[in-house]
Amino acid sequence: MQTLHQFQNAFEQYLQENRFEWHPKELYEPANYILSIGGKRLRPVVLLVAHYLFDDDFKRSLPAAAAVEVFHNFTLVHDDIMDAAPLRRGLPTVHHKYGLNAGILSGDVMLVLAYDQLLKTQSPLNGEILSAFTRMAIEVCEGQQMDMNFEQQSDVKIEEYLEMITLKTAVLVATALKMGALIGGASAEDAAHLYEFGKNLGIAFQLQDDILDAFGDPKKVGKKAGGDIAQNKKTFLYLKALEKAPTELADNLKRFFAGTTQIDEETKITEVLSIFRVLGVEEWANDLKEQYWKLSLNSLGKVKTRPGRGQILEKFAEALMNRDF
Amino acid sequence: MQTLHQFQNAFEQYLQENRFEWHPKELYEPANYILSIGGKRLRPVVLLVAHYLFDDDFKRSLPAAAAVEVFHNFTLVHDDIMDAAPLRRGLPTVHHKYGLNAGILSGDVMLVLAYDQLLKTQSPLNGEILSAFTRMAIEVCEGQQMDMNFEQQSDVKIEEYLEMITLKTAVLVATALKMGALIGGASAEDAAHLYEFGKNLGIAFQLQDDILDAFGDPKKVGKKAGGDIAQNKKTFLYLKALEKAPTELADNLKRFFAGTTQIDEETKITEVLSIFRVLGVEEWANDLKEQYWKLSLNSLGKVKTRPGRGQILEKFAEALMNRDF
Repeated sequence: MQTLHQFQNAFEQYLQENRFEWHPKELYEPANYILSIGGKRLRPVVLLVAHYLFDDDFKRSLPAAAAVEVFHNFTLVHDDIMDAAPLRRGLPTVHHKYGLNAGILSGDVMLVLAYDQLLKTQSPLNGEILSAFTRMAIEVCEGQQMDMNFEQQSDVKIEEYLEMITLKTAVLVATALKMGALIGGASAEDAAHLYEFGKNLGIAFQLQDDILDAFGDPKKVGKKAGGDIAQNKKTFLYLKALEKAPTELADNLKRFFAGTTQIDEETKITEVLSIFRVLGVEEWANDLKEQYWKLSLNSLGKVKTRPGRGQILEKFAEALMNRDF
Repeated sequence: MQTLHQFQNAFEQYLQENRFEWHPKELYEPANYILSIGGKRLRPVVLLVAHYLFDDDFKRSLPAAAAVEVFHNFTLVHDDIMDAAPLRRGLPTVHHKYGLNAGILSGDVMLVLAYDQLLKTQSPLNGEILSAFTRMAIEVCEGQQMDMNFEQQSDVKIEEYLEMITLKTAVLVATALKMGALIGGASAEDAAHLYEFGKNLGIAFQLQDDILDAFGDPKKVGKKAGGDIAQNKKTFLYLKALEKAPTELADNLKRFFAGTTQIDEETKITEVLSIFRVLGVEEWANDLKEQYWKLSLNSLGKVKTRPGRGQILEKFAEALMNRDF
């Protein structure tokens, strides 16, 4: 039985062996840089695991795994420009290190390089895999646009928020699972169940992320509490609070998130968190997260994997939700 | 026999019927905008013609034709950001009209939408067509990076310039021809000849463009003379002039193109043009253009088209070089 770390290691080795060492270096160095500052490789690992559920030779899925990781990093590079973010994982973002134009262009080439990797996949279902990837890539752009729209939009609905995180975050996890499954020889039905598993897991994960950002232990989460509040992010917590709050309190909240109040950030975070607590939005968020978590496990339970392999994704999902991965 | 306008019309109709009418509109409106301000659709038309050389049913290549046009427009949107260009074809560029973030993100989705179109192609050679498109897309990014590098680089060589325009401009024409040929059922050999035809035609076209920018009749060219000089573009004319000029004159030229002289634009253009004339660089450029033109016709001559269709691409190429298309 493979452990998650073995998938991770196989993937890191593939990335190392497939660095972008071409000319001109100004184009490829930023791509290698963002890929080297790494993270946990969740998306490629989950793709490889999905393959392994149906077939031992998961290394056949390494190019597809690289495609999703390179694609994900392309979105980080361009999102960081759009968010004017100076840092990512404690290091300078690509456009801060190399300039705006390098950020745009190396992001562009990474999107193409993701397809380049994907085209290395040997599978009779290549057409279907490419279509799934392309649909996902379109949806991720749509999610990012919705996220940007929300900054200007005062009447964001909870359903719209859920649609946004589905598109921006969850469909990539879902599609990674589907791709790995198809390359591994899964039936269309099992691939669809894994897609649903990944989609709902992705939504649960994002809701968890919203909760931890506000109420988590900063030591465990690795960033200080209230970052979303400081940035006026209209997360589920904020939208649910608006829904539950009496008019006056709701108006207060709106003022805080309009960014027009004169108070300092610390005070604002403290005030907003106390409103969140009074209204009990953490519980609402936890309930909703649990719903998506159960939906995801339900889909996973329907997948006919090879004997003895059904547990590996459940363990992965649990580790993910507990931030132990 | 089809005329070029019939290919153009078929393509415009396809574009109209396949507008991006999805949600959120902030993502797709900029894409529809840049595609609607049009141009001559050279790349898709040449792709359709390449198909028609081998097979009547050129409409099977419409999705691939849309892919190259959408891809080309994606590069325009992002290049305009990188060049800080306010206008394109006399209208506001996407980032000027909709903002930087919309320019980045709608460009991104256009690149994915190009693949989305390409995946609609029905051909047993889909894998090869996708690989050719992907290779081309990588090369176009490399060409754009080289072009940006040249702005900072004082020792650009003529070979480097030719490599840059090959990557940035010519491979897209070449690949469009190859794709259309393959979808139309051409042999690998004929597709390769058409690729070479397109590549050399693209280089000849770009050299012609450099010449017209400096020496053309502004009324016919549609823009005032010397735009490249005003922008300190290191075109073939400039590089050849540096090669031919005695030290003192070369130093003068370098100073003009370093953008550090205090003279006004009009005077600078007049001065540089007179240096170009003294050194006879227009003749050198015309000679080189003719060489590539002959290479392109030579490759075209090797293509085994269906009877009576061999002339259509030659006519297209002539019209293109005479700016009559």
